[in-house]
Amino acid sequence: MVATLACAGNRRAELLKVRPIPGKDPWEHGAISTAEWTGARLADVLEGAGVHHDENLHVAFAAPDVAPEARPVQSYGSSISLRKALSAEVLLAWEMNGQPLPRVHGGPVRVVVPGYIGARSVKWVTSMTVQAFPSQNYFQALDYRILPPEADVDTVAPGEGIPLSSLPLNCDILTPTDGDRAAAGPLTIRGWALAGDGHDVARVDVSVDQGRTWRQATLEQPPSRWAWRMWSLTVDVDTGPLTVMARAWDDTGAVQPEFTASLWNPRGYGNNAYARIELTVM
Amino acid sequence: MVATLACAGNRRAELLKVRPIPGKDPWEHGAISTAEWTGARLADVLEGAGVHHDENLHVAFAAPDVAPEARPVQSYGSSISLRKALSAEVLLAWEMNGQPLPRVHGGPVRVVVPGYIGARSVKWVTSMTVQAFPSQNYFQALDYRILPPEADVDTVAPGEGIPLSSLPLNCDILTPTDGDRAAAGPLTIRGWALAGDGHDVARVDVSVDQGRTWRQATLEQPPSRWAWRMWSLTVDVDTGPLTVMARAWDDTGAVQPEFTASLWNPRGYGNNAYARIELTVM
Repeated sequence: MVATLACAGNRRAELLKVRPIPGKDPWEHGAISTAEWTGARLADVLEGAGVHHDENLHVAFAAPDVAPEARPVQSYGSSISLRKALSAEVLLAWEMNGQPLPRVHGGPVRVVVPGYIGARSVKWVTSMTVQAFPSQNYFQALDYRILPPEADVDTVAPGEGIPLSSLPLNCDILTPTDGDRAAAGPLTIRGWALAGDGHDVARVDVSVDQGRTWRQATLEQPPSRWAWRMWSLTVDVDTGPLTVMARAWDDTGAVQPEFTASLWNPRGYGNNAYARIELTVM
Repeated sequence: MVATLACAGNRRAELLKVRPIPGKDPWEHGAISTAEWTGARLADVLEGAGVHHDENLHVAFAAPDVAPEARPVQSYGSSISLRKALSAEVLLAWEMNGQPLPRVHGGPVRVVVPGYIGARSVKWVTSMTVQAFPSQNYFQALDYRILPPEADVDTVAPGEGIPLSSLPLNCDILTPTDGDRAAAGPLTIRGWALAGDGHDVARVDVSVDQGRTWRQATLEQPPSRWAWRMWSLTVDVDTGPLTVMARAWDDTGAVQPEFTASLWNPRGYGNNAYARIELTVM
């Protein structure tokens, strides 16, 4: 299974420019990657254990890594709905890109939940529990949630906010990068796009005039429907400052929101605003 | 089954202020409604006919009403994926709100596809075909698609653009209405919100300061997960011009895009920008 994993905090650095978010990694563009995963379907393991589908159940994963930032300090844990756990794309993986899964990536065995935030793809998984409620772990009940802007992360109660599961429809510009100098003339812009759980990227647009007009990028075929879709577009650029923007549409006709400022939240998750870079054309 | 049906062109009037869209109804806020539907599950009918699930199949619906705007002139038709057709919420309905289905609403029998654009809930349905491809009808292959802004609707080829299925995450303000005068003091704002197919509304925010700050509206329990969710908020307002904005978040933490101008498309579908009204407070 080729699948893209992305941290819910990818592109957080753009949110930090709106308002500080203490204690969280200032991820720029790099908290996302794609690999080929080999393992067992989680559905086969669950069915082998006698689990049957029930809309009201969840599968909780336990891991041995202790997180000092959790309140109280505890081992990592997380859960997904049994519905998602029984989907064909969810794996217990022991190989990455044809090699034994490295320890840093969760070896010997990790969960891979394509379409969901990376935090649900639990590394070094030691046990699974089918249960009637989501994980009560700090990272499910308190962290990895979209809180309203006015929430105080030091006093928020477990279960407040919107728990994250599916990644949002998103895209980013890979080359050139923010702050680059470019030569006048043809400039090729490349990036990725990824739709929410169960959806495909249908179109990517690029604007070099602050969103007044858009041109469609050329989309590559993704290596699987659970992987990012690469895109590119060559535009002619003149000397001076240049803003390049990109936005993705999914297979239902939904499009990303425009501005990071509208998406600011106290834990800095889910930034899926239009991608924007500023260049100087010489 | 209580379900909300909404035209893909609901809120088109806001798109018309960006650029004209000839030949399409200038829907404002009214191309959406909620009713209790009684009928047979389409899944039961299909299974009774020996249909088994297959990810690659579609169910096409034929209707007798002839559409003069179609090219060439033809009867109405549409299709949905077999996956959606076998979902428990899709009905062949013959009663609406406890009464025989009125002719104007599709009686004697219509399809009801909760979560999808209204165009898929085919009225006066006369036949169904399980087939390997989507409907080739004008209203599936040419209309009810998100075309890029530069597309020419007179020359676009069948299959171009993004075919519409799931409604987008959306909300609207029902009272007060755009252009109203209001008295200074407490003002109660009411509206609806609806998430995309298979998702729930998790939060609705209201802003009376052009989006600089937001307050959470109180959400009512919806009558079913396929129905709109009503919300309300009382704010204190001062004399002068007032813009009221509303936006909905779904259960994955996704939020609506900000501006209708970003969503303009040649057939005027899928406007799910933040809801906005302008009032005069006396």
